[in-house]
Amino acid sequence: MNSWANPIKLVLVEPSGTLNLGSVARLCENFGIQELRLVEPRCNPVDTEAIKMAVRGAKLLETASQFSCLIDAIADCSRVIATCGRIDHGEIPLHQSEDALKWLLESCSSSPVALVFGREDRGLTNQELLLAQKVITLQTQPSYPSLNLSHAVAIVLHELQRCKQNVSKKGFEKAKKNDPASPTQINDCLIDAQNLLLEIGFLQKHTAESRMNKFKGLLQRAQVRPEEVSLIRGVLRQMRWAIKSCNS
Amino acid sequence: MNSWANPIKLVLVEPSGTLNLGSVARLCENFGIQELRLVEPRCNPVDTEAIKMAVRGAKLLETASQFSCLIDAIADCSRVIATCGRIDHGEIPLHQSEDALKWLLESCSSSPVALVFGREDRGLTNQELLLAQKVITLQTQPSYPSLNLSHAVAIVLHELQRCKQNVSKKGFEKAKKNDPASPTQINDCLIDAQNLLLEIGFLQKHTAESRMNKFKGLLQRAQVRPEEVSLIRGVLRQMRWAIKSCNS
Repeated sequence: MNSWANPIKLVLVEPSGTLNLGSVARLCENFGIQELRLVEPRCNPVDTEAIKMAVRGAKLLETASQFSCLIDAIADCSRVIATCGRIDHGEIPLHQSEDALKWLLESCSSSPVALVFGREDRGLTNQELLLAQKVITLQTQPSYPSLNLSHAVAIVLHELQRCKQNVSKKGFEKAKKNDPASPTQINDCLIDAQNLLLEIGFLQKHTAESRMNKFKGLLQRAQVRPEEVSLIRGVLRQMRWAIKSCNS
Repeated sequence: MNSWANPIKLVLVEPSGTLNLGSVARLCENFGIQELRLVEPRCNPVDTEAIKMAVRGAKLLETASQFSCLIDAIADCSRVIATCGRIDHGEIPLHQSEDALKWLLESCSSSPVALVFGREDRGLTNQELLLAQKVITLQTQPSYPSLNLSHAVAIVLHELQRCKQNVSKKGFEKAKKNDPASPTQINDCLIDAQNLLLEIGFLQKHTAESRMNKFKGLLQRAQVRPEEVSLIRGVLRQMRWAIKSCNS
């Protein structure tokens, strides 16, 4: 099995336009994406207009799974790329799409990988961007960077297709890199850390989120590995033990 | 003047859908294309639906020039690329889009260059393809290669934009990066962490080095920033305080 035979999940967060939803389903069919996942869709995925726009991709709309939040939609995915068209992404680093997509295809586990796209009007929140290991941005005119959702999907899927073909042309001779920790592993670890830091008074409730985002950003940039997440959780456990044992 | 400052004309042959026409106008605005040329359009370019889809590209619909045949629409252009999604293109050679677009941008005359897209249902005829110096095809699944017109335009314009920007790519990446923390800052922080982890029994003297190396590797990969090092040291201080205060 070539590494890029990993199933690729296309995730849309709160899509609101039936035309867009239908267009994205058609694009999935054009580019061999077999599953569409919807997080809290704001429109009916099997609306007549969506089905019409989807043409041969209509079956993807019918079988699209729905989730109540992004972390659930990517829970089984080992590598996740999110897209960002906003300029106010804070310190989250943006990658060129080509490099990031190659990385997505190099996943050596057999678990799915995901491409995440945000709302038509506001994209993904910084919180959502931080759930992905890499965030990409597309190259548009600075004077009007706002791409229609389905056009952003078209560009990314075409680039992915090109990367796949290049990979298959060259063969897969590259040394396989290890998969980074999954978004769920990282998220659980950060919740654990946040709880401890609240307990010892390092964090206050009202500042917790922004401070924890700094740690998230750091782990994201490092592409933290599963064994490193385990190491950090080991430290957290021991800290808890050290604090509690002297209380007892 | 860089060669790619040549005006690029986007030519649509017999477009029939107002949604598509509007979407293409929006894309022109997204990617800095300043003129749309229409050959025998089968719908009204300033239809309400088209204007709505165009958003900030509406002015391109209003100023679009119309022609009765393709050769007239490209008469003033020195380099012309046509797109082909059909498989029955006879002996007309198909190029990879990237190579052809680079060639388009390398035009050394100051006259315009053109990108030509065909009808939604049938694309361009072989006669029309033969008017262009190069014909490109996009990489889709062989099982369903038929892209929506505006999605094909999105893919080609994004690729063109990337070719343009590759010139200044290195500068862009450099400017984006902040200075990472100094080796001394990182080292001091790790010594501080190691001491605490030894105190609470997470590390043993004989395993300390190899475990701490894992943290080092993580911080190095992340190119940890000075303010992040301070944050980590803040956590270490608070941990120490939490452990000591319950001993006193």
